[in-house]
Amino acid sequence: MKKGRILTGDRTTGKLHLGHYFGSLQNRVKLQYEYETFIILADVQALTTHFENPGMLSESLRNVAIDYLSVGIDPEISTIFVQSLIPEIAELTIYYSMFVSVNSLRHNPTIKTEAKERGYNDLTYGFLGYPVSQAADISFCKANLVPVGEDQVPHIEMCRKIVRRFNELYKPVLVEPQALVGEVPRLVGLDGKLKMSKSYGNAIYLSENYDDIMKKVREAVTDPNRIKKTDPGNPDICTVFSYQNIFNKTEKENIEELCRSGRIGCVECKRILAGKINELITPFREKRAYYEAHPKLVDEILIAGTNKVREVAKETMREVREAMKINYFE
Amino acid sequence: MKKGRILTGDRTTGKLHLGHYFGSLQNRVKLQYEYETFIILADVQALTTHFENPGMLSESLRNVAIDYLSVGIDPEISTIFVQSLIPEIAELTIYYSMFVSVNSLRHNPTIKTEAKERGYNDLTYGFLGYPVSQAADISFCKANLVPVGEDQVPHIEMCRKIVRRFNELYKPVLVEPQALVGEVPRLVGLDGKLKMSKSYGNAIYLSENYDDIMKKVREAVTDPNRIKKTDPGNPDICTVFSYQNIFNKTEKENIEELCRSGRIGCVECKRILAGKINELITPFREKRAYYEAHPKLVDEILIAGTNKVREVAKETMREVREAMKINYFE
Repeated sequence: MKKGRILTGDRTTGKLHLGHYFGSLQNRVKLQYEYETFIILADVQALTTHFENPGMLSESLRNVAIDYLSVGIDPEISTIFVQSLIPEIAELTIYYSMFVSVNSLRHNPTIKTEAKERGYNDLTYGFLGYPVSQAADISFCKANLVPVGEDQVPHIEMCRKIVRRFNELYKPVLVEPQALVGEVPRLVGLDGKLKMSKSYGNAIYLSENYDDIMKKVREAVTDPNRIKKTDPGNPDICTVFSYQNIFNKTEKENIEELCRSGRIGCVECKRILAGKINELITPFREKRAYYEAHPKLVDEILIAGTNKVREVAKETMREVREAMKINYFE
Repeated sequence: MKKGRILTGDRTTGKLHLGHYFGSLQNRVKLQYEYETFIILADVQALTTHFENPGMLSESLRNVAIDYLSVGIDPEISTIFVQSLIPEIAELTIYYSMFVSVNSLRHNPTIKTEAKERGYNDLTYGFLGYPVSQAADISFCKANLVPVGEDQVPHIEMCRKIVRRFNELYKPVLVEPQALVGEVPRLVGLDGKLKMSKSYGNAIYLSENYDDIMKKVREAVTDPNRIKKTDPGNPDICTVFSYQNIFNKTEKENIEELCRSGRIGCVECKRILAGKINELITPFREKRAYYEAHPKLVDEILIAGTNKVREVAKETMREVREAMKINYFE
């Protein structure tokens, strides 16, 4: 007997990286044994920023799916599905949009931050409404729990509000979800920036090989005041040390001491870290190679998952229409 | 061989009135023999203003459908369908929303006017996006022509822009529609207000009987300077005369002369008008009585129409997905 249902997923805008892993993937892998897990490949949401180039979605979709399978999402237990193939999500988005105010979207902190980061002066209607669409993603399958990165918490809050409003206005058929923030809510980037992100170019991908990892780690930001290997370092302001804290828990105290006393150089410290990251990623890479060699299998997993989810979506929409009394011919 | 396809329809917020008849219904009846005609019962769009009370939609939907059938829409020739039962419209709305800017919606003159009239300070997301949804209504079935009231022309203009943008961005699979404004683009209300409208309470409904028509016409606004029957009247500022101009073309010149020379009183003039309106409406009322006595038949017409349109919608979405290269598994 599982504890409830999880909805989780990612926009299909490229391969996933370590930020995704510690923000939520790691959690999902663990939780799939406790919760019925639905994982959305959010290609429609990817369009909010990639509508000019949707051709990339097809490849991204498969890449993200393979990332999931590689880190340990078990397609026999979890259900991976494609957002754009569930029209009920679009329908629910439209119904929710009737009672969500434009101002509440404009003031959504994540929308504000993302719009600012992208330099948007004039938002598109779809970008502004992305929390509404996300609320539909979560609630169409009546998820109880949503493992997310810290920056997505305001969206879950908005989803809860929308679900409450729907249940009050019509009939309590929908479920208010809880957010579950991962162990490392926000992994810093290799450049020391607040967040590892594809768009900042400061990420290590779950599909990278040792050489690439080593190359990226070598360029990672450390204590800028440390010139010579024998200078005492300050791990508190060192990005590389912040990673040791995550990837190398057993050695991190030792490394901290060696660094503070100038007995380990940055080159050596980085070599150790790259090894540890590679240790984590190696089994992912091996699984990835298998799925990359079997693209038909990946498609079959996505089609089967989507078909399964479609049935759940249809049933929810049946209840939604009944609650709204727009089930005219039933 | 028909000349093309028409998409037309109404929000299902209540019975239709003479303003609808002269604005577009009359045109639709004529055009159904020349064009393949799809008529949308826009219940989802009705939700933009009626989301708090969707229970009324079920009755309204049938009432509007019966209005169509009563004025001469032939269900053997034209296809009447229910918007909320075509999920492809919701999907297309979402795709369009990715490239329609919030500012272009805010500056849409009809949205501005309607928001003002309703006293909305804070629009809902759905209300703001109603032109996007309408663009999807029109284009999902590749309509060439849209018979509309004058106030809807900016929405058709926006639909054309959206279709052009889609065709440029992806592949030219959609059709740019033309607006066709009816013979009387904007029927004045009984109170002399600019527009006959349910919300102003100044309308004569297509389902009303002679007594009700007479009662309403009796209260209609005339030349306020005319006190006695023998005073000369001014037809130029008389609402009742403006109706004679529409409902009683053969007698209008005679009535104008009699009015200007004080030889016909307002009471008599109104009696003549009410008779003429009743003459127009009587066959509608008779047909209405038949359909009201056969509600199952009405439902069958709507279900058959919706099923037919659904196939068209599926085919368009197949082309849309192919154009956007998101037809992943085909």
